[in-house]
Amino acid sequence: MKRRRFLTGAGAGATVAASTVFSPHVFAQNRRFRLEMVTSWPEALTNLYGTAQYFAKRIEEMTDGDVTVRTYPAGAQVSPFEVYDAVSNGAFECCHTAPYYFIGKTPAHGFYTAIPFGLTLPEQDSWMIAGNGQALWDELNARDNMIAYPGGNTGAQTGGWFNKEINSPDDLRGLRMRFPGHGGRVMAAAGVNIQQLPGGEVFTAMERGVLDAAEWVGPFDDQILGMHRVARYYYMPSWAEPSAMLGFYFNLDVWGDMPDDIKHQIRACCYESNAWMSAQYQAKNPVALTELVEEHGIEVKDFPESVMDAFREGARVVHEEDMEASSMYRTIYEDWAQHRDIVRGWNARTTHAYERFLYDHS
Amino acid sequence: MKRRRFLTGAGAGATVAASTVFSPHVFAQNRRFRLEMVTSWPEALTNLYGTAQYFAKRIEEMTDGDVTVRTYPAGAQVSPFEVYDAVSNGAFECCHTAPYYFIGKTPAHGFYTAIPFGLTLPEQDSWMIAGNGQALWDELNARDNMIAYPGGNTGAQTGGWFNKEINSPDDLRGLRMRFPGHGGRVMAAAGVNIQQLPGGEVFTAMERGVLDAAEWVGPFDDQILGMHRVARYYYMPSWAEPSAMLGFYFNLDVWGDMPDDIKHQIRACCYESNAWMSAQYQAKNPVALTELVEEHGIEVKDFPESVMDAFREGARVVHEEDMEASSMYRTIYEDWAQHRDIVRGWNARTTHAYERFLYDHS
Repeated sequence: MKRRRFLTGAGAGATVAASTVFSPHVFAQNRRFRLEMVTSWPEALTNLYGTAQYFAKRIEEMTDGDVTVRTYPAGAQVSPFEVYDAVSNGAFECCHTAPYYFIGKTPAHGFYTAIPFGLTLPEQDSWMIAGNGQALWDELNARDNMIAYPGGNTGAQTGGWFNKEINSPDDLRGLRMRFPGHGGRVMAAAGVNIQQLPGGEVFTAMERGVLDAAEWVGPFDDQILGMHRVARYYYMPSWAEPSAMLGFYFNLDVWGDMPDDIKHQIRACCYESNAWMSAQYQAKNPVALTELVEEHGIEVKDFPESVMDAFREGARVVHEEDMEASSMYRTIYEDWAQHRDIVRGWNARTTHAYERFLYDHS
Repeated sequence: MKRRRFLTGAGAGATVAASTVFSPHVFAQNRRFRLEMVTSWPEALTNLYGTAQYFAKRIEEMTDGDVTVRTYPAGAQVSPFEVYDAVSNGAFECCHTAPYYFIGKTPAHGFYTAIPFGLTLPEQDSWMIAGNGQALWDELNARDNMIAYPGGNTGAQTGGWFNKEINSPDDLRGLRMRFPGHGGRVMAAAGVNIQQLPGGEVFTAMERGVLDAAEWVGPFDDQILGMHRVARYYYMPSWAEPSAMLGFYFNLDVWGDMPDDIKHQIRACCYESNAWMSAQYQAKNPVALTELVEEHGIEVKDFPESVMDAFREGARVVHEEDMEASSMYRTIYEDWAQHRDIVRGWNARTTHAYERFLYDHS
């Protein structure tokens, strides 16, 4: 573990002295930063880990090498679910992860990845950028000495892999399943035995029969993990993750040491990386889905309406628990829900109506 | 009109000499650029013109003032539809406009705003970023000595304002309507008398009775223009612009004079601005639509299926004409259509299926 060793070059030695002896101008002359970014992703997942690498490449290009970012796959420095604490306590400067891995700390982190029956990709982007999503996130993250920006979005995920058909809510009871975030709690309410595993361990757990079912991301990632070799049924749609945002988190002490223009460049680089990841998933998931079906014989199935209804009721119960337990959840929920209701009415009349014409008349 | 006066500071005088006398390193030392950006938007349209202003503010922050961008509303320097030529010929360094205003030059520009029955917002972003959209655009724009990046997207637009109900394709015949891009050509094929007017002139033309109908953007912009004062029926959905991308265009001589890191920053700033604009529309359009209905008594109507079918047939005819007339259109179309078909199948099974459950069971 390390702390505050990210300043490099001639200015680094002056860090402590700067605040007492030198003017802010002298301090600002140090413009070279070496950041280490821990992630929750195995290197093989080229869209997830690839987004951390994309960010690193782009910020180096944008700063002409003044800012370099060294990325680490899950486990290389800290385990996948320890990255949040590692940046919070200053052991690493930054991380790339899914905020909803940390709903155990406080349930409000869920709004920054996915809430069951929540926002689609354009709706989430809109809440973050044109709504109050970012400002509320700043408040949430500052409590752990961090600031974060959108770090990619998988777009719509899938409903998960199952070893048996799910024809009614009863078929869920007793299943042992990997399912993160609030969606996992909804599954638990439906009688599923939920286990939280990082992506790199899901395949092995299914192969060994420790799990009967698993939700990971979508066809592109799931195929890399080899899920088609350990499960037969692939369910749609994802009611738990209609989109799933990730985050780039930065330690606030590190952040505060950077000049404003570099902070602005990092923020722009986060937005660009955010768009890059969702574009990749949109393009690659359909190709992988076709391969899973045509080359690997996977059966794609739709959740029956009774099961979708059960999930929605479960989501209501989990939501009520969080409203009771956490004032931060309640504060963010009220803003988020207002945004959701406004944008949904519009999307129903426009994009959805357009697509309904296309799909029903093709 | 001006030419090549964008270099400022000590390095500016060395521009011509640099290529013959000084090394590239010396040349790269000039890092201060003053860019003038002409736009196609009246200042009152705070999402459209506002995106040019947002870009200007952000690139100045990112470069600590090394790059400044002065934006001009439509008509302040050149008229709204002249901005493309003004950047192509070097009179101005950059512009912010809708590529499909220039389908008269070559129809392939339409792919970079909207094609009837074409791509939604995530689909367009995906084609640009993860598909070949940007590379093909680079080829198209290089012919006119420019490079362009995505400069915002309105998301789904609306079907337009009409002074009478449209109950069948016959009701379209003889209407005088403002309708840009390929959609306007489809309308013309349906018997509509199409007029191309910049946004700033649409209201007056409707008020004076020169037009019977008009398509502009969506509730937020249309309310600013005052369309609810000159038309009663607001039709949905937009079959012509399921999303509509704009572009930041840069003159290639100007671009070539910039150091690589600044080009990378500008590209990131374009992507951030692109996300900013679509987020704004997603949040503001529904609020404006409610105001139009509840405060101004506008009637929101859906195009009947027979009219949608007529539009789709018209789009097919226009497309066939362009395939015959332009090899560049054909080249881009083949790539675009392949991307469209791949992503649509995925979106139908995921986001659309999810929303169908939400909207049909609310």
